[in-house]
Amino acid sequence: MKQQVMLIGIAGGSGSGKTTLAKRIAETFGDSVAILNHDSYYRAQDDLPVEERAKTNYDHPDAFETELMLEHLKKLKEYQSIEVPVYDYKIHNRTKDTTTIHPKPVVIVEGILIYADKRIADMLDIKFFVDTEPDMRLMRRILRDVEERGRSLESVVNQYLATVKPMHDAFVEPSKRLADLIVPFGGKNPAALSLICARIRAELAQR
Amino acid sequence: MKQQVMLIGIAGGSGSGKTTLAKRIAETFGDSVAILNHDSYYRAQDDLPVEERAKTNYDHPDAFETELMLEHLKKLKEYQSIEVPVYDYKIHNRTKDTTTIHPKPVVIVEGILIYADKRIADMLDIKFFVDTEPDMRLMRRILRDVEERGRSLESVVNQYLATVKPMHDAFVEPSKRLADLIVPFGGKNPAALSLICARIRAELAQR
Repeated sequence: MKQQVMLIGIAGGSGSGKTTLAKRIAETFGDSVAILNHDSYYRAQDDLPVEERAKTNYDHPDAFETELMLEHLKKLKEYQSIEVPVYDYKIHNRTKDTTTIHPKPVVIVEGILIYADKRIADMLDIKFFVDTEPDMRLMRRILRDVEERGRSLESVVNQYLATVKPMHDAFVEPSKRLADLIVPFGGKNPAALSLICARIRAELAQR
Repeated sequence: MKQQVMLIGIAGGSGSGKTTLAKRIAETFGDSVAILNHDSYYRAQDDLPVEERAKTNYDHPDAFETELMLEHLKKLKEYQSIEVPVYDYKIHNRTKDTTTIHPKPVVIVEGILIYADKRIADMLDIKFFVDTEPDMRLMRRILRDVEERGRSLESVVNQYLATVKPMHDAFVEPSKRLADLIVPFGGKNPAALSLICARIRAELAQR
């Protein structure tokens, strides 16, 4: 019998806590779960000089090679391994490296814009949207980019105003309409985590 | 061993689809689930003439005898039966009748304002909020009150403007913050229903 694969979407704005939620789920099920991140599919920009590449709007759906991700999702559904591109944020370009992701019974698909592309949304078996207040998302993003990534506060705020916020309002927030369930407080929501894990456990038990 | 009881909250605005969701869950588990409705605890108004009783703001937390509901929730938690008041909407008053609710492993607590009272919210093991767009909620309310209950369109709209909408904005919408999970499309959301049922099934299996 062919192995069934459940694709679970976790979307939500930047700083919403979706990565934490995805990690908590993956920790709970260990080897039965793989995580696929939409960010890995940022387009190769070999034809552009580095200063031009830095100007790309990384919060717009066009920044992603979604066609490749769709191919990979189909392969994972058919229980085949995939070679996921590795993006280097420092040079704003895709590297020559890839990461092998082996097929798993449960694959979590994570990204701010995965429901903004109907082709991805249609492939997912359950769609979660992590919904966190804008001020909390901005606070987390500032802490992460300034304290962990050493960026200046000015550059973080400029990027927030130039692309993060307008793209959130234009693409991320409207795509919430496609979600099956909305998770408040993202990574720190034990009741939601226990619900999601119960559903996955039920699915794995049927295999 | 003492029987464990799981209390599940389902809140959401008038016309959101919370009753449909509660019924679907109850249908799935049959005899293991009881539903307790906050509306059953509208205060007795024996001391007021009927024309005064009609003016009560039924969308405000003060309209409910929440103390009695809290007592009843404690009894259900201790696996004891309760006598739930029966309200007669035609005379705007509590009747002398009661409905016996026997204790069950899972009790669904339903109402627009159950999270607006922190004492109820604190007793619930999982809190869902059914979130439906205001126009869809109004549409359902009009269809229900005009077609099923024979009320005039004018009286439905007047009540909506006088109490339903302002109380929703003042108490129901802010109480969404306390929810563990937000369910869009209320009664017609099979993915959410399957998740909630998986969680309940896991709970029942532990007993």
